Parts: sequence; C-alpha cells; structure tokens
Amino acid sequence: MATGTPLVLDRQMFCFTLFYVIHTHLFHCQQFLIPFKDPSGCGVNEFFDISSLSCAKCGANQRKSSSGLSCICQTGYKTKHFSSNKVPFTCEQCPPDKPAVTKDGFGCIRCPGRLDDNGNCQCPSGNILVERDINGTFFDEASCEACIGDSPAFTAPNSNGDRCERCQATFSNTFCTCQSPNVQAGGLCFPPGSFSTNVNPSVSYAQLAFSIQSAWFVENLYSSAAACLVFSNLTACQALGNMCVMNMHSFTGLSTDACGLFNTISRSKAALSSVQDISYWRANLPWLYYGDEPGLAGQVLQNKPVPLSFSFRGTKKNTDIQLLAAVYNVRGDFLRWDPIGGNNLQLCPEQAFKQAAAFSFGTTYQETCELSVAELLTTHPEPLFYDVFMDLGGGDNRKLLPLPTLVQNQQYNGQFINQGSMQNWYLSRRIFLVDTLSGREKTLSSLPKVIRVATSIKIRFQLVPRTQEGQIYPPLVSVSYTDVLIKEANSQTLPVTFSVEYEMDQSEARTKTDTALGVLGGLAALYSILKTVSWKRRIASPLIDMEAQQFVSVLLPLPAQEEQFETYIGCAFALKAVQFLNKLILQVTVDVFLIDWERPRSKASRTVPATKETKQEPSPVSIWRTYFVANEWNELQTVRKISPTFQIMAVLFFLEVLGFSNLALRDPWSTLERSPAAYTPPYSLILRYGLAATLWICIGLLQVIFFTVFYEHFVEDKIRQFVDLCSVSNISVLLFSHRCFGYYIHGRSVHGHADTNMEEMNNNLKRERESLCGQRGLLSNTDIQTFQVSFTNRLRLQYDRIQDSLSRRNRPSRLIDASAANLSELQFKAYNTMNHFLASVIDHAHPEMDYIVKDKLTLERVIGMEFLEPIDKSIFYNDERHSFSDVLFYGNEATLLIFDTLFFCVVDLGSQNFVLAAVLTYLQQAMFRFIRNTLGRRNLVNKTLVDQRFLI
Amino acid sequence: MATGTPLVLDRQMFCFTLFYVIHTHLFHCQQFLIPFKDPSGCGVNEFFDISSLSCAKCGANQRKSSSGLSCICQTGYKTKHFSSNKVPFTCEQCPPDKPAVTKDGFGCIRCPGRLDDNGNCQCPSGNILVERDINGTFFDEASCEACIGDSPAFTAPNSNGDRCERCQATFSNTFCTCQSPNVQAGGLCFPPGSFSTNVNPSVSYAQLAFSIQSAWFVENLYSSAAACLVFSNLTACQALGNMCVMNMHSFTGLSTDACGLFNTISRSKAALSSVQDISYWRANLPWLYYGDEPGLAGQVLQNKPVPLSFSFRGTKKNTDIQLLAAVYNVRGDFLRWDPIGGNNLQLCPEQAFKQAAAFSFGTTYQETCELSVAELLTTHPEPLFYDVFMDLGGGDNRKLLPLPTLVQNQQYNGQFINQGSMQNWYLSRRIFLVDTLSGREKTLSSLPKVIRVATSIKIRFQLVPRTQEGQIYPPLVSVSYTDVLIKEANSQTLPVTFSVEYEMDQSEARTKTDTALGVLGGLAALYSILKTVSWKRRIASPLIDMEAQQFVSVLLPLPAQEEQFETYIGCAFALKAVQFLNKLILQVTVDVFLIDWERPRSKASRTVPATKETKQEPSPVSIWRTYFVANEWNELQTVRKISPTFQIMAVLFFLEVLGFSNLALRDPWSTLERSPAAYTPPYSLILRYGLAATLWICIGLLQVIFFTVFYEHFVEDKIRQFVDLCSVSNISVLLFSHRCFGYYIHGRSVHGHADTNMEEMNNNLKRERESLCGQRGLLSNTDIQTFQVSFTNRLRLQYDRIQDSLSRRNRPSRLIDASAANLSELQFKAYNTMNHFLASVIDHAHPEMDYIVKDKLTLERVIGMEFLEPIDKSIFYNDERHSFSDVLFYGNEATLLIFDTLFFCVVDLGSQNFVLAAVLTYLQQAMFRFIRNTLGRRNLVNKTLVDQRFLI
Repeated sequence: MATGTPLVLDRQMFCFTLFYVIHTHLFHCQQFLIPFKDPSGCGVNEFFDISSLSCAKCGANQRKSSSGLSCICQTGYKTKHFSSNKVPFTCEQCPPDKPAVTKDGFGCIRCPGRLDDNGNCQCPSGNILVERDINGTFFDEASCEACIGDSPAFTAPNSNGDRCERCQATFSNTFCTCQSPNVQAGGLCFPPGSFSTNVNPSVSYAQLAFSIQSAWFVENLYSSAAACLVFSNLTACQALGNMCVMNMHSFTGLSTDACGLFNTISRSKAALSSVQDISYWRANLPWLYYGDEPGLAGQVLQNKPVPLSFSFRGTKKNTDIQLLAAVYNVRGDFLRWDPIGGNNLQLCPEQAFKQAAAFSFGTTYQETCELSVAELLTTHPEPLFYDVFMDLGGGDNRKLLPLPTLVQNQQYNGQFINQGSMQNWYLSRRIFLVDTLSGREKTLSSLPKVIRVATSIKIRFQLVPRTQEGQIYPPLVSVSYTDVLIKEANSQTLPVTFSVEYEMDQSEARTKTDTALGVLGGLAALYSILKTVSWKRRIASPLIDMEAQQFVSVLLPLPAQEEQFETYIGCAFALKAVQFLNKLILQVTVDVFLIDWERPRSKASRTVPATKETKQEPSPVSIWRTYFVANEWNELQTVRKISPTFQIMAVLFFLEVLGFSNLALRDPWSTLERSPAAYTPPYSLILRYGLAATLWICIGLLQVIFFTVFYEHFVEDKIRQFVDLCSVSNISVLLFSHRCFGYYIHGRSVHGHADTNMEEMNNNLKRERESLCGQRGLLSNTDIQTFQVSFTNRLRLQYDRIQDSLSRRNRPSRLIDASAANLSELQFKAYNTMNHFLASVIDHAHPEMDYIVKDKLTLERVIGMEFLEPIDKSIFYNDERHSFSDVLFYGNEATLLIFDTLFFCVVDLGSQNFVLAAVLTYLQQAMFRFIRNTLGRRNLVNKTLVDQRFLI
Repeated sequence: MATGTPLVLDRQMFCFTLFYVIHTHLFHCQQFLIPFKDPSGCGVNEFFDISSLSCAKCGANQRKSSSGLSCICQTGYKTKHFSSNKVPFTCEQCPPDKPAVTKDGFGCIRCPGRLDDNGNCQCPSGNILVERDINGTFFDEASCEACIGDSPAFTAPNSNGDRCERCQATFSNTFCTCQSPNVQAGGLCFPPGSFSTNVNPSVSYAQLAFSIQSAWFVENLYSSAAACLVFSNLTACQALGNMCVMNMHSFTGLSTDACGLFNTISRSKAALSSVQDISYWRANLPWLYYGDEPGLAGQVLQNKPVPLSFSFRGTKKNTDIQLLAAVYNVRGDFLRWDPIGGNNLQLCPEQAFKQAAAFSFGTTYQETCELSVAELLTTHPEPLFYDVFMDLGGGDNRKLLPLPTLVQNQQYNGQFINQGSMQNWYLSRRIFLVDTLSGREKTLSSLPKVIRVATSIKIRFQLVPRTQEGQIYPPLVSVSYTDVLIKEANSQTLPVTFSVEYEMDQSEARTKTDTALGVLGGLAALYSILKTVSWKRRIASPLIDMEAQQFVSVLLPLPAQEEQFETYIGCAFALKAVQFLNKLILQVTVDVFLIDWERPRSKASRTVPATKETKQEPSPVSIWRTYFVANEWNELQTVRKISPTFQIMAVLFFLEVLGFSNLALRDPWSTLERSPAAYTPPYSLILRYGLAATLWICIGLLQVIFFTVFYEHFVEDKIRQFVDLCSVSNISVLLFSHRCFGYYIHGRSVHGHADTNMEEMNNNLKRERESLCGQRGLLSNTDIQTFQVSFTNRLRLQYDRIQDSLSRRNRPSRLIDASAANLSELQFKAYNTMNHFLASVIDHAHPEMDYIVKDKLTLERVIGMEFLEPIDKSIFYNDERHSFSDVLFYGNEATLLIFDTLFFCVVDLGSQNFVLAAVLTYLQQAMFRFIRNTLGRRNLVNKTLVDQRFLI
C-alpha cells in the first residue's frame, strides 16, 4: 500500500478518479436496494453469506450445514484443509477401503459393521465406537467395544457413544442396566414394586372442555413421583409438585393424576415431622396445600395480624411492601430468591417505577394489558414456579411470612371450590404465570395446543379493624388461570391483569353511617316538623298532614361501601330537587301587588293655591313609576348571592387546572401535580364526591362572603336599590308568600309626590340627602321600610275578593284574543279598588283590619316561625334583613347552592368527568333560570296588570 | 396404609384427633413464620434444602457442593452408593495405596505424578489423564499420555484433559501447536507476518474523559482482525466490525484501534468487487460506513424517493412501516432477521400495541423512560448489533432498503463530525443498544466499569416535497450513545428515548403563508384605508394622519413552522385586542341624548275645552319615562348576539367531553375516543389552534343563527323591544358615534301623550294594535324609526355649544360634593334647551339645520361609508337593521367573537390546557363586561343627566 514512484501515484489517482466517477454515476442511477434472503431461502448447495446477506455457492462436494450459515462436506467426503493456511477447505472422497468418515469429519476409516446415514460407522447399542487410539492416532479400522457395567466399573456408553462412563447412581445395583423387574423411567431405575406405574399424564382444560395427553407429563410424571417417593429426590418432588400446580391444584376422582400422586406421597410422609413447624409442609415435598378443615381460610386470613405495621407519615413511615419468591423451574430446580415485582408477577410491560407503585402500601394498583400469544410462546418456553413470601425484615433474624394463595380455577371432582364464600375456600401455595409446556401433545418441541396463563393476579391486603397502628392480616394472593387454544399465535392476544387491593371491614363504618343518618335524620325530622307547623300557621291551615322535608343531603360524606354511598347521594339529590322544585313553584305563584301612593297633582298643586282649582278634573297619575318598579322587580327574580357561572369556572379551575382531582385517586399521596409518566391509580367515587362537594361549598361560601361583605357594600346591592327605588317612586310592594303571611316594602315618598320632572326629582333627592324631610319608615321617625307580615284572615278574605275580579278569571274561555293588553274596564276598576283598599289599610283607615308593628323575638327569627297568631290585628314585624328576598332566588342561596352541588356531584359520579358535570350544571342553571324568569314574569303580569312589554 | 382391625382404626382416629388438637393449638398460638435462608447462607457442612428452604446438615465426610444445593464428598473421599437403593450416598476414604480420587468421584486410584487440590491426579500440560481402560474398568494406576499432533492425527488434549481430539484447523500446519514464528491469538494460529500485532485494545469514553483497556478488545481485537484479513473469516470480520461499532464508529489518529483496523482491511479489499452493487460494502466485511465524499449525506437522504408510497385512506391505504434488522451477536454470528419493534430498538417497556404505533406512518411517536442500570446489566450481558433495513415488500422479489444511520457521537480525531449541518454528516450503518461488555476491564466476568447505552434513537421520515402520492426519502436513523460510569448500579437510572419523526420541507409552506399574508395584508390595508376615509368623513376631519387598523388576524390558519405560527397568532391577537379596546373606548364615550316629546298636559287636556285653561301653570312632565328608557339603554350595553358563557361551555364540551381534542394529536387518525391505554402522541400546536378556533367560530355562528333566526323572533328581541319602548314612551334617542355621524331612534308617540295612567296606556296600545292611529315612522305613512345620520357641521356645533353647559365642566374643581345628584340650575336649563332644540330640528323647525331622509345605496352599505357629504342638510339614512347597535356590544359580535377566539387560543397555545383557557376566557369576558357596564353607565349619566340610581 506504500507508494513507490510517481507513476504509481498517478495510477492511484486515476483509479480513484475513475472510482469516484463510477460511484457518482452509480449513486445517481440506482438506489441502495438489496433483495431479501435468509438462510432457509438458500439452495442445498448454497450457504447464507452473513456479510453480504445473500446466498453464496458452496465449494465442490459440499453442502449447506444445518444452520445454513456455512458449508460442510457431503456424505462420504472428508474435510481437508490446505496446508497453505487458507481456511476454505476442500472435500476429498474417502477411498473404497476406508469408506466411512470419522465422526470429527477429518479422516476416513474402515468400519467393523454398517455405516449410518451420515457415512459414519455404526455400533450396536450399548457399545462405543473407537476410532482413535489413546494418543489420538486414527485406527485403520474402527472397533465397537462394550462397556463394563459390573462393580466396581459401573460404566455405560456416554451420550456421544464414543466412551464408557460411570452410569447413573440408581442403576448401579443392577450393573448399569435397569433390568426387569426393575422399572426404568425418566433416566432412573426403580426397584420393583416401589410405585404403581398406573399414572394419568393428561392435563384437563376445563375451560375448553377437553384434555390432552401432555408430553411433559408422559415423560416425567411417573418418574418424578417414583423418584420422590422412593429416593426422596428433592428435585423430583418439586417437579411433581409443579405438575400439580400446572393442573391448577385440581383433583379428579382418580388419585393417579399429578395432584393425586402428590397427595398420596404427602400422606405417606405424614409420619415424618413437618417442615418449619408448619403441619401442612411435609419434609422433602413442596408446600402446596393448606388443610381442608372447614373455615380454615378465615382463620388463616383473619385471625392474627402480620407482625409489621405500616405508616404513611412520621418517623415510622413505612410503606414498602416487600414480597419475596422462591423460584423453581419446571424440573424442580431451585433457581433463586426473587423480589416480587416487574420481573416476575407483573407480566405487563411497564416502567419499573410505575410497577414499583404496586408495592407502596395504600396504593390501589391495577395494570391490565393485552399480551401477544406469539410473544408469550417465545419469552416463556418453560413455566417458572413461585412460592410467595412476605419479607418481614429483621436483620439477622430476617423472617418470612408465606402468603396463602387462592386459585380461582381450583377444582375438586369437577366442582369449582374456591368461588364461593371464604368459609369454603381451600387455600394453597405456589403459582406460575405462563405454562406453554404442558400443552405440548406429542413431543416437547412441538407447538403447544393450549397454553395456560395466570391472567389475573390480585394481592389483597386486609386491614385489621380498629387498628391504630396500620396492622394488616396476611395478604391473600388470588390467581385466575386462562386456557388459550393456540390457533393463530401471531394474531392472538390475551388480557392480563395484575392488581393490589386494600380492603377493610366496612361494617363498623356502616354502623357509624347509619347512626349518623339516624341522629341527623331525626334532627332533620324535628326541624321539618317545626317548619311544617310554621307553614301551617302561615297558610292558616288547621289540618295536620304527612308531608315533610328532609335535610340529610350534605351531612353524609362518610366513607361507606360505594354502592350504598351512591344510593345515599342519589336520595339526597332527589330530596333536594324536590325542595328546589317546591320553592320554585311557590315563587312563581306568589301574590304581589304594587301600591301607588301618588295622588293626582291638580288637587294640591305646589305652586298654585288649592282653592282656585276645586272640581277641576285631575290630570291622570302617570303609570310609568309602576312600570319601572315592576320592571325592576322582574329583573330581581333570578339574581343570586353568588355568580353561578363563576362558581362553575372556579370549581373547574381547581379540579382540572390546579389538579385537585388528583386528590381523589386511590393512593395515600396528596400531591396536586403528577408526572404523566407516573402510575395513576383509579379514582375513588367517595373521594371524588367529597372533593367536589367540599370545593363547591367552599367556593360558594367564599363567594357569598365576597358579595355580601364587599360587593354589595362597595359596588351595588340590588335588593337595597330596589327598596330605595320604591321609596323614590312612591310605590309600596305587598307580597303574599303564604295565605296569611307575606312581606311589605313601604315605599311611600317622603315628598308626597314623585310623578314630576327631572329638576324636582333632583331637588327631592337632594333634600332627602341633606335630611331636610321626614324619614322613610312606616312609623314616623323610623326608617324601617321592610316588614314581614302576619295578616288576619279577614284582610286576606277582602284581598281575595278584590283579586278575584282583578285576575282575569274569564281568560281560559276567551282564547281568541287573550293577549295581555286585553284588560277589561272591570279589571282597571278592581286595580284602583285594590290600590285604594291596600293604601287605606296601611294608613290605618280600616279599624277592623288594623295592624300593629313589632319586633320579632330572637327565637322567632332563629326557628323562622311566629308565636303570635294574628287574630284581631295583622302584625307587621320589622325586618331589616330584607327577608322578602325569600320569594326570589336571592333569599334561597343555600338551597340553590346545595342543589347545584349535588347536581354536579351526581353527574360526576355517573360519568367520572368533571368537565361534563360542569357543562351540565351550567345548562341546568340556565334552564331553571329561564323557567323561573318566564313563569315569574307571567305571574307578575297577572297579579299587577303591568303589560309584559314593559317587563324587559 | 390399609387398615386391618378396629383397633387400628381407633388408633388412627386417636392420632388424627390428637393431630388436629395439636394443629389447632399450634395455629392459634403461632403464625406461619419461617426464617430466611439462602444457599450462600448455609455453613460449609450444610446444604440448602430446596424443599424446606432451610439449611440441612450434610452426611459424614461431606461438604457443600459449589451450588450449595447438595453435598459432595470431601477431598480424598470417594462417593459410595448403598446397594440398598437409598440414594443418599456415603463417603469413604481412599486407601493409602490409591490416595487419589478419580475425576468422576467414584473410584480411588494411584497417580503417576502429583495430586491437585481436589485430590485428583495431575498430568503435565499437553498430556491427558487416563483413568479407565477403553471398556470402563479403572486402572490401578492412572497414566498421563501425550497427544499426537502430527499429520494425519492432528490431535491435542480436549478441554477436560482426558482425551485427544482433532485440533483447530488453523493450527494444523504446525502440528497442533502454534509454534513461533506463528502467532497464536484468540484460539487461532496465524502465519508469521500476516498482520501487525500492534493493536490498540482500548475503548475511549469521551463523555467521561477516560479510556480503559477493554478485556473484550484485548482478547479479540487482534485475532478478529487477523482472522478477517488472513482467513477471510466471516464471523471474525463481523466481530471486528462490531468492535468498531462499540467504539461508536470513531477513529483516533492511530489506525490501530478497532475502526482503524476495519478501515485498513476495508481498503485492502477495495480491489474485490463490492457486495450487492453497493460500493461502500466490501466482500466479507460488514457495511459500516458510507463514503466520505462531501455532501454525500444530502444526496443519500434527499436525492431519490423510496419506491413505496403511503396513504391514509382509500383502497391503497398503507400506513405500515416495516423495518427489518439483521441481528448479529458480539462474536459476529448472524442470529436472525428481526422485525424492528418492541423486541429490539424500543427499550422502554410498553404494551406491544402501543409500541406498534411507532410504525404507523404519520404518527409522531416518542417514548421515554428511566431504565435501571442494574436491570440493563442483567438483561443485556452482551450487546446485539442491528443492521436496519426498510422492507419494501414485493412477494418473491422482496426488496430491502438499507437505512443510513447518523451516530451523533461519532468522532474523527476527537472532533464530533455529525453535529453540524447535513452537508458535513458522515453516515454509517449498524447500531447497538446496550453494551455492558466493552467496559469490563480485567476479565469478561468482572462488573463493567462503564456501560454504553443508545439513549436516543430517532427515526426521521422526510416527505418528498410536492408529492401527491405520499412518497418519502430514505428514513434516517439517528443514534446518541451515553456512557454511564457504574457506581451504584442498583440505584442508577438512565433516561432512554425512542422516537419517530416526520419532517417536510417547510420552505414552500412558508412561501405560501407569506404570499397569503402579503395578499390578504394588502387587502386589509386597502380596507383599512377605506375605513379611515369613512371615519375621517364621519368625524369631519380634513387631516390625513397615519393611523390604520389591520384586519389580518383570522386569515392565517395555514400551517407553517410553529414558532413562526405562534408569532402570527400572537400578532393577530395583539391587533385584534387593539381593535377591541378601540371599540370599547369609542362606545363608552359615545354622545347620547334622550329627546322627550311629551308636552305638559294641561295645555291641551283631552276632556276639558282648551279655552278654559289658558295661562294656567302646566303640571310638570313626568321624568319617569326618560328614566325608564335610560335604564333600558343602560341594560342593553353588554347584551350580545350570543351567550358567551354557553359558548365557552359548548367549546369545552366538544373539546374535553366529546374528545375533539384528540383530533389535535400528531397522528393521522380522526377518532374522538381513544382508549386510555392507547399510545398518545404529543399535541400539534397548529392543530390545537385550528381545532379550537374552528370550533369556537362554528359554535359562535350557530349561536348567532339560533339567536337571530329563532330566539329573537319567538322569545325576545331586546333591540326591537327598546325601539318599541321609545315609541310607547314618546322619547327619541339621538346618538353621536362620531363627530358628524350617528344614529337616531324616532320614538315620538303616535298618541301625542304617553304620560298617563294604566287604563289610557292600555287603550293606546290597543288602538295601535288595531291600526286605529298613525304609523310610528319619522316620515308620515312610514314605520321606519331608526336612522343612520350624517350631521352637518353646523348642527354639531350648535349641539356642542349646548352640551358644553349641559356637561358638568366644573365638576373636577368641586371634589367635595361631586356626587351625581348635584346638578345645577344651569344644567337643567341646558337640558331643556337641548330637548327643545333637538325636537325642533327633527320637526324641521330650523331651516338652516334641515335634513333629508333617503335610502343608503347598496355599495354604501357594503363598504360602510357614505358617498354624500352633508354640506347643507343633514342626511337621515333609513336603517331598518338597527345599526345603532354598533355602539353596543350587540352590533360588534364579530369583533368580540374573534377576540374571544384568539384569547382562548393564545391561552391554550401558552398552556396547552383547554380548561384553563376556558376559565381565563370567562374571566376576561366578565372583566370587560364589568368595565363596559361601569364606564357606559357613567357616560350615560354624564350625557343624559339621568341619576345613576335609576340605572339599575
């Protein structure tokens, strides 16, 4: 490669240039495409060139090797390397006098007997073929030699058939052959009569309703059982146990299947002392079954707590669940101690730290995935078997707690014995995950007909009731196996689940819930009786009937079983909905009348002496003030103490943007932000409810505080504005919320007239601000304008009489022209009569319908009921709190807020979607607001005769 | 086990009962706890009993075997089985005359030489130990025999040292020993001078700034290179190539490192024809490098499309990317063809169908996870090497396209050569994932000091520009390796990424975007000039100044590079915000006056002859109608054509509940519902924008249609209600939106009076409904009440003059008592003057300020500009469309909707959170509504003198 002369250099340069040109040309003309070839696709005389990934020809007299990656000499040809060190060898035919090729392929030899198919010498069975002498020199003729099986040699041919070696120990007493009556099985030689050869090597696939003769069982069941029983061979005993586990611990009636044999041997060893002081664990045998005493499962699972306590916080924080498994292969070899985790029980591929979340105490864990059957076949050629323990730690004195296992598919004589209640469970031990071995029918290398997979593994932790120290009972490993018939392995998939659950005896919580429900329900009943009595008095009803309102709704955020809990919430919502609808109906049917105090101006004109204009027809009193007040009252109907839309947005913001919804996950961590890669446990419905309801109520209360404390003082208070408007416009409002109970807003102008021009209006306002006129109150020198009123029945009767002609009773019969403007003369007369009547009542002009004004007692306020009955006189209670808003949305914020809360929560419980709940809650609010507005306006039109075109 | 007599039965029963009692007792007293033991924890004379999982004593003269699971005889003791078939064997000391134990452990023998540590005979090296004769009988004394290395025997001792076997082919010319001057290396014998032994077996870890002598390289580098060069050994060539790959294809200056040796050999084979017609691929060698011609990378990657087309839909649907890899182990053996997927390049554990999403064309894929170093060490004891191809299919003619690889860490003389622009890239082939081998320093079984992991593998697809058939260029596999120093393998983790990207030359899209931007921007500029001219005329401004409004905002949803796109959206939002604020300011400063047509009633009382009451002081005209109209106007301020909250809720519902947000994922599927387990690609900002904007606009348009077509016809139309109210209340509204342009709502009552009582109001309404009176229009016999008005400058000047005294100019200097009620006499006078002046203008009572009424031309309507200038007379344009709502939110729905849309999208682009965007949009709307209401009310108070207490 070193260059000598310029000429050479030039030639190199030329070559390079040429090469470059060719290359560039090639590059532009072709793409780098190669045909696909694989070793099996090459011909008999070709090999697969692993460098060029193509097939290449073998040399003369050569053929493809079994791997297809190289060539070997054809039968009858020996391999010959060139002495010139070029490795590609040649093949040379053996001469006729030495027709056989030696086993190593490098020599030719004469045979003592026949040749086999590969052109090598063949010896009779039990003999070995000797081709070389002890120093390696080829004989001219090979010889066949017998091995000496007698003591002390004890030899037999090795697997290659070219040497005598020590034979297996169990053969040694019969001189390295297992002669009758000894029984040879599985490479061992059993003495006569040691074990019945009648075994049943079939595996039953109950889910697929057939059973097959398993090649593995045929090969190993008898020998394992016999070696276990006769030679106490530890590995054989494990292998036998594994076969029983592959049968899902199931017995048939026969005692000749794997589990039957295991139990027979187990019983026969009962005399020996048990292992580790555990009576179910027999010496030399694996521990597969707990006993069959009735109720044993309950005792094992719920009798004694694990001597270990878990804690989420503090110095003793301990949330690591450490499980350990003794792992055995199918032959019964002990492989290792393996910590339970992603490498074994968790079949689903997941990131390690996600899988580790399963073993953080308190985290409800579930991973499910679809596994490809084809992949299972490659990754699990043989099953592994796991004996699961819980590691209790303890340094040098490290202790393990064996975990009981419940095999859901375990059968006894065809009956599923583990699917009933715990009383009847039969606990066991040892599980496997994927068994692709027992389903192979003819040979162990054939494709399995069926595979059996542990499609559900669930570890269930149960808390000791009333524990203060986080104690648990022994966790239960619950396994379900699924049999999968192999049809199209490449397209078949299988859902696999691994889960960890936490349970607690809920009977105590349930008792507490029921107690709370009882006590609070009782209180609610008392309260509702009180409310009923109050309502009876207000409607002046003497009857006692059976309607009652329950207020239990939001008092139940205690954890209980979720179905029961959902029922509670559903009931609470239903009751609240009834209350809400009831209030809605009351509000849209309330009796209201606007009393106009204005008298025609010409009678007492301010600027002209009164005497001059007697008898003059007065100019009409303008109705526009009444319109104004009615319009404003109409607008007040659906005003609320909070902004309902802001409420929804704020709740959504906390739940979905700030991530409060993460608090409802079933794990013990209270972090708002979770990495999207982290394990996300399922939601707890109860926590979702608690979270949503708490947030909703809290934000609602904050809003109420903000609006009542700040907004209404510094921005606007619509209720107070309305009361002011009444006063300025010289109009009073009388409301009957019940038959004999209602509210009165005193709006008589202190200036006498309000129906005037801008200048005078402004002067009036100015005078009032400067306190140059009287106070607005009903009683002189007071400024209380709003009252609760208990009316006498007499007054109400009179009111009803006038109202009768005021409301358009004949409307239903006159459908043709029933629009609001068709008011009859009679109605206007009734309107004037009513106006005059009510004004005169307020003015004490009717002695038989007089009234007194008094304060309400504190107790009356608290329980919302009046002690005095209005027999002779109506009673006006001073009411500075504007409680007339009880006939508006404004005064019923609590009901509306709780109704919205429950609506939101019920939608969320149903859909588990906060956004959907928010959207539906918005629509619900909009709908009820629309209904309330429409019906409220119609009611106002009917009761006050104000044309609805002015209520805009 | 069969029972014979009742006595036996009784005894059995007794035993059973006793056992049960003991068991029950045991059960209640103890828990099943066992101590933890493992094989290494058992003593020298103990073995680990795999059945009881505890340590058990070995028999006499026995010790633990190396696995710890069984016992073997001590040194000097032979194994002896009892003939009674009990397997547990005994150990018997060898007699002094036969002190050694045979290798199989079953016999005692005399040695020709010394004994080794295990008590077996020891032979000199090159000799074999013979203990049995050919038939298996033990000799009394073992012998040591030499193997004949000469032709034709060619034998050497086997690995056990007990037999002569054919020696390795390369040794054969030196009689089975590799004698000087031959060189022995890696089990091969090389002829003298065939290859320089000066090789550099170090691996450099540039990231960690050190290099180590790798045990693997020490052992194999020279022998692989020599065998490849000298014997053309295919496996050796692959092994050499693998070592170069383990060095990340990097060269040092020396040519004695792995890649240097590879290139030396590669050059030496340049004379041979290249493989598969690919000039970079030399016979017998793996293809590791593309050439080093400048710009080659660009040619390979962007010159010729792959002869394969992808399609998302239709009959030719093809979205499967099929990649195939030829897999080699570190020794250079070809293992198999492997489809690329979860089993090889995707290190992160994920469900198979999720991983398969990576190879669905068009799905941007990225999976990242933290892998535990300890796990990598166990799962990847040796690296595997992948030559990646794309499978183009084609049945029998199946073709493969080799994928170029870019190794980010590739160095040339210490320079990173692949981190610049594509022009300078050096493409290569063959990658590995995890190499825990080359970092082992002393021996191959030691723990590696460093491991090297392909922490980022990215497959980049590039679309052919302007392709209509979904053609792509050859995909590029881009690999980054990371060196990890092993300190605490159990706690170390490593982030690993696998991704698939799709790129497209965006220059064309960018050109198109810019073109569109230019054209539309030009149109917008023209439009804005027009608007400016119109505005100039309306404000009667003679000046030409440089302010302009751009309308480009929503015309740009074309895909472009995302940063650029974000800039565009940001600009659009900013411009729209400017427009919105501008409108807001105009609206809250609009000039408005309410003209009251009502005249004092006493002058022409309906029931009394007019003559009788001359000179009588008229009763004042009630101001309440004005209050009513002002109040309603105030309420109209923020009424919109749509419900903005419903808008937000609906958008949220579609995006988050119905799952429309899934459409913005970077994959080609348009499914709304995705299983939570499915692979979720990242979001595309552009798609998010497109989706949100489209949804927002569509729902907005649907709402506009619903409200204008349905709601306003059948439920309520607030604008029309207001116009009606004006008419019923005998009040006209005059608005100046610009200096000389405005709107007029004609509200003169057809009944002459509106200031009357309920009865007369109802009669009036009734008469009008029955068409017994005139029409409401400004011109007689028309009913057009609303007008756009171009005012003459003269009229405006007069208006301004009166307005001057009307508006409270002195207010700023009188802060002490500046509340709204402090109106001066002067102002009321001005108010009356203004009322009178405007009423008389409308009544044509001022000839010098007369006006004409006409229709607008269609073109004038379309471009929103008046062609006639109001020189002499003001012009009232008939306007049935109520365009006075332009000074309200109502008339600017387009601006508001687009502003909201952009606001929503901008928040979402910033946060990628639709819920947050919705919440902020709601707050934004609420805030601007509050501002508009507050400022609008203040403006109304100032302009109409209505006390703000009546604007509630």
